[in-house]
Amino acid sequence: MSERLVIIGGDAAGMSAASQARRLKGPDELEIVAFERGHFTSYSACGIPYWVGGDVEERDELIARSPEEHRERAIDLRMRTEVFRIDTAEQRVHARDLEKAAKGEKDAEYAVPYDKLVIATGARPLRPPLPGIDAPGVHGVQTLDDGQALLDTLERTRGERAVVVGAGYIGVEMAEAMKKRGYEVTVVNRGEQPMATLDPDMGRLVGEAMSGMGIRMVNDAEVTKILTTEDGRVRAVATEDAEYPADVVILGIGVRPETDLARKAGLPLGTHGGLLTDQAMRVRGHENIWAGGDCVEVLDLVAGTERHIALGTHANKHGQIIGANAGGGYATFPGVVGTAVSKVCDLEIARTGLREKDAKAAGFQYVTTTIESTSRAGYYPGAALMTVKMLAERRTGRLLGLQIVGREGAGKRVDIAAVALTAGMTVDQMTALDLGYAPPFSPVWDPVLVAARKAVTAVRAAG
Amino acid sequence: MSERLVIIGGDAAGMSAASQARRLKGPDELEIVAFERGHFTSYSACGIPYWVGGDVEERDELIARSPEEHRERAIDLRMRTEVFRIDTAEQRVHARDLEKAAKGEKDAEYAVPYDKLVIATGARPLRPPLPGIDAPGVHGVQTLDDGQALLDTLERTRGERAVVVGAGYIGVEMAEAMKKRGYEVTVVNRGEQPMATLDPDMGRLVGEAMSGMGIRMVNDAEVTKILTTEDGRVRAVATEDAEYPADVVILGIGVRPETDLARKAGLPLGTHGGLLTDQAMRVRGHENIWAGGDCVEVLDLVAGTERHIALGTHANKHGQIIGANAGGGYATFPGVVGTAVSKVCDLEIARTGLREKDAKAAGFQYVTTTIESTSRAGYYPGAALMTVKMLAERRTGRLLGLQIVGREGAGKRVDIAAVALTAGMTVDQMTALDLGYAPPFSPVWDPVLVAARKAVTAVRAAG
Repeated sequence: MSERLVIIGGDAAGMSAASQARRLKGPDELEIVAFERGHFTSYSACGIPYWVGGDVEERDELIARSPEEHRERAIDLRMRTEVFRIDTAEQRVHARDLEKAAKGEKDAEYAVPYDKLVIATGARPLRPPLPGIDAPGVHGVQTLDDGQALLDTLERTRGERAVVVGAGYIGVEMAEAMKKRGYEVTVVNRGEQPMATLDPDMGRLVGEAMSGMGIRMVNDAEVTKILTTEDGRVRAVATEDAEYPADVVILGIGVRPETDLARKAGLPLGTHGGLLTDQAMRVRGHENIWAGGDCVEVLDLVAGTERHIALGTHANKHGQIIGANAGGGYATFPGVVGTAVSKVCDLEIARTGLREKDAKAAGFQYVTTTIESTSRAGYYPGAALMTVKMLAERRTGRLLGLQIVGREGAGKRVDIAAVALTAGMTVDQMTALDLGYAPPFSPVWDPVLVAARKAVTAVRAAG
Repeated sequence: MSERLVIIGGDAAGMSAASQARRLKGPDELEIVAFERGHFTSYSACGIPYWVGGDVEERDELIARSPEEHRERAIDLRMRTEVFRIDTAEQRVHARDLEKAAKGEKDAEYAVPYDKLVIATGARPLRPPLPGIDAPGVHGVQTLDDGQALLDTLERTRGERAVVVGAGYIGVEMAEAMKKRGYEVTVVNRGEQPMATLDPDMGRLVGEAMSGMGIRMVNDAEVTKILTTEDGRVRAVATEDAEYPADVVILGIGVRPETDLARKAGLPLGTHGGLLTDQAMRVRGHENIWAGGDCVEVLDLVAGTERHIALGTHANKHGQIIGANAGGGYATFPGVVGTAVSKVCDLEIARTGLREKDAKAAGFQYVTTTIESTSRAGYYPGAALMTVKMLAERRTGRLLGLQIVGREGAGKRVDIAAVALTAGMTVDQMTALDLGYAPPFSPVWDPVLVAARKAVTAVRAAG
């Protein structure tokens, strides 16, 4: 007898799960029904800043697989259809066809029973309830629909000044994008430094570099309202102390797991509001419900606690694993070490593992060390300075975290530490790592090795 | 009472050892005497191709520390002085001042007693005894003196055609260098494909790319003699089948450990002709003699046997470790996984771990998988194709090796596998690695993850 797999959410996690399950089981064994409330499936939200900035010409380049392509693989994909209730007792979901509902058609709502359920509802951008926040010209950049709305605004109104609210990775990437479009860009940031995913001493380097690129950085500043013109369009962003004129405002202040549905269904949520799953990405306590992507919390393998990380690469992994399990196979997701890399113009920013405050919160005692080195041999053309900060546990010398701020060739070096963290290596073990060396690729001591050597000394000195 | 540390060889391993020992012990506790037969100390031999090619303008940029700088740190450095005998019973070395010897001065030779000895005699290029091999215009590129001699030749004689003998990393780097100088370049290679440090299927990609760059590749060709003009200068390289006209010939056919001195002194050598050391880089069976750099064999942590790898990054690590131990501290060198990266024009070539033939020789049963992916998200400008080949052990799925051929952003990805090999990870574990992702840096599945996923399937299929 055929089973039915129902999937809520048609982006990376949901549709990877659908594809992987389909690979394992044909339509005669497994019916797959997927709901997506937006207009697009399987797209790269991470690519939106580069589309807005003009590096990517066409929206469709960001779409890995269209609804039609999914349907060709025998996936019953229902676009513009929102699931508004999960009934775990009856094993069914209640859905609303948004087009029909808009026209007031009475068969817009219906229920679909499931044998297996996947929740991949993603995240929603934080949107503080400020006066003016809903004015035309204020944009989030979370979904492809959001990106399209922003580009429509930019094409309709000729502006000169953009204010980006928030200086996390979306904020800095959007600052670059708007600068590329010829805007004067101001970034208004609540924190003392941009990139709160780094320690402040490393974030400061990012802020200095961005200022050097002609991006105006306003730190320690809380937005109090969005000011509008008489006809209601955005004209400025106000903080307690100042006003920053803006023809367009971009919100990049982070996201929260989209788990209203799950909460109403009584499914277990963590302290960050994300669904809690087991090793197989199954919702804890629910044999036949899986969840993945931006709506779940993941185990931080270094801190030993759950975190919420909205990142396409995790969502894709989750989807694969869920699809394998829901399709009768077996796969697990052990957790993350918190790796992230981003760039703003030619500045590369990377981090993995714990920041100082994470290490403290996790109960670690630690040492830190910060070094400067270059991406290539010093004498080789294009050798660019980079700063590397390393955290290691006191006594054991176990690597706890790494942060990098540099130029070309800096960012992906974080992978060395990501693998070392996964393996539980000590900084002493890291000094012996056999990393790729040739003058166009690295100094004879790779910057990560230089940091590890200095960290060994710091661990020893701390006793 | 002061001890005397004698060091034979003034390049990376020797002088790193000297510097590190000096850091730990002052001149009143430890006298350091170092012998170097050439004109330079502590230079980057790996940088020679880039100096010849013009990327590096001045020879002195390749010198990390000059003789004067070493002497300022209380190291008694004797340049142009060759050690010609080690007497381990008497604990002394016999040295010859080459300048004095050239003038026939009778005090050119003398003995120096040691308490501790470091052998860092490096490697010597293979130079087969072919007719014409010593003709003017035939050059090795092993030492800075060699590089200077080649550049002197290039400046003296205006040539158009260069033949590079050998297609290992020195060969391909020199092919690029000569092409940059405007030469028509032919590479004559004994193997079926260039880059014998890769499997032939990956080497073929390198050969095709080099041909595409206008470098003439002649594979499966053994050089039989160097043909000369009437006045004795090189004019062509002959193989059994053909002659390749040449105004200059560059030998890049590999190196052997320079261990004549050590062999005569009865020190233990391995099957590759290199000195055998223990974990602390001490020559086996000799409490007070250390050896490091290109003259030693190192433990291959994957194969479990000794290898000879001439590479500056290892030499620097060895020097640090020897200096720490000889200076009364403690450090060890666990071994290598065989990582190497090189480039020829915009082609990046990297490898770590075992090739197929190494895996066979080590007794492993294995599976291989080869994938194509891109350096960045496919839609991001500059995304470049790369080919990744992965070897994994049958049954256990343990990673055994990785090879990469690609363009910008390909080479240093080998570090991911280098760390994973060191940690003994399986390809299954690697699929969960939390690697840095953002569209300018990687597709949502990093190429290494794509290879790992496919390797998991291959391991399972092999049973």
